Amino acid sequence: PGKKVLIVYAHQEPKSFNGSLLKIAVEELTKQGCSVTVSDLYTMQFEPRATRNDIVGHLHNPEAFNYGVETWEAYKRGGLSKDLVEEQKKVQEADLLIFQFPLFWFNMPAILKGWMDRVLVQGFAYDLSKVYDGGLLQGKLSLFSFTTGASQEMYSKEGISGDIRYVLWPMQHGIMHFCGVKVLEPHICYAPENVSEEKRKEMLAAWSQRLKTLWKEEPIDCSPEWYFK
Amino acid sequence: PGKKVLIVYAHQEPKSFNGSLLKIAVEELTKQGCSVTVSDLYTMQFEPRATRNDIVGHLHNPEAFNYGVETWEAYKRGGLSKDLVEEQKKVQEADLLIFQFPLFWFNMPAILKGWMDRVLVQGFAYDLSKVYDGGLLQGKLSLFSFTTGASQEMYSKEGISGDIRYVLWPMQHGIMHFCGVKVLEPHICYAPENVSEEKRKEMLAAWSQRLKTLWKEEPIDCSPEWYFK
Repeated sequence: PGKKVLIVYAHQEPKSFNGSLLKIAVEELTKQGCSVTVSDLYTMQFEPRATRNDIVGHLHNPEAFNYGVETWEAYKRGGLSKDLVEEQKKVQEADLLIFQFPLFWFNMPAILKGWMDRVLVQGFAYDLSKVYDGGLLQGKLSLFSFTTGASQEMYSKEGISGDIRYVLWPMQHGIMHFCGVKVLEPHICYAPENVSEEKRKEMLAAWSQRLKTLWKEEPIDCSPEWYFK
Repeated sequence: PGKKVLIVYAHQEPKSFNGSLLKIAVEELTKQGCSVTVSDLYTMQFEPRATRNDIVGHLHNPEAFNYGVETWEAYKRGGLSKDLVEEQKKVQEADLLIFQFPLFWFNMPAILKGWMDRVLVQGFAYDLSKVYDGGLLQGKLSLFSFTTGASQEMYSKEGISGDIRYVLWPMQHGIMHFCGVKVLEPHICYAPENVSEEKRKEMLAAWSQRLKTLWKEEPIDCSPEWYFK
């Protein structure tokens, strides 16, 4: 109660299974007394491309554009584009970040990757030697909630898609842990398009149920052993 | 000689190190008698977002938009948007796909992820049970060539960033192998921004040198052991 949650949501269709998962999270967390903000990336037509347009005004080095350097400098002088400043404000205020999306090609959809690329700039999310446990977004939690096309059997160590944890490494360790954000167990709905209506309802109920005790969960141990043991 | 190469390039600045790597590849491969095509994603202002705009004309199911289903159906009736058809044509003609980019958050930049999301649709790159070794892009080679921010020591099994091969799994196995494309050893330039000018020149020379005998290389064994052993 009183906790702030930002849900970054990347699906085009409100009637989709991802749309249902979003709706459940908003309802359940609001009922708990949390303050919930949703960044609905497709509806916002969020820009995924990292370009010169992200810097308002002059460039630090107009001779050779370096996105990392330019956004870092722009952040320090308050010169990032308005859409980025708004997303950073939402992140800053949040106790918990939930990412809700369909897995596309073993990874998040480009529109969500663009959110990571553009919002989590140096100076804001990390800085020189302020990375991993020393990252600038310490004190926050994150949770990756997604659907897959392939089944749970395929996403096993012996399955053709490999252990599902392999695809979590770049997202959870490479992004969230890098910024100092703790990571809760991912919430994975396997192949909702290929199961019965009853099974889909069970999946939705399980998400709702998990959210009821979410704040009592301990973060995972974000070490290579968790992912590759 | 006579081979066709498509280079999908994702950097904003021609004067960057990635820009130099691109230039070297175009020059060296052209010199060998290859026909080289470049998709320069930022210059093309390539759209990374997977939306309804990718389908020309009517939708298969306008009641609930499903990107995977709609692009599959659109592909079959020749109803994908022009920019996708053009990229698919380039892929179809290529013997080798080279992806040249800076690693962003343990992954490819969003604009390049968007190329994967939108170009490699069902029906074109894979189909029902035509995946992995049976994928529809069989007979082609691919090569991921990228720069990193972190050093080679950091990207080792004991380093904080973990083995660099962990980040290759979603790209090489999850995308290329899934579509039936064989994968050559990646070409990785570690932290070019943090090394001496001399070292940078050595890195460029090494890329040029490798390209001279590229067509004699054997693809990697794209199994979990290669990535996680």
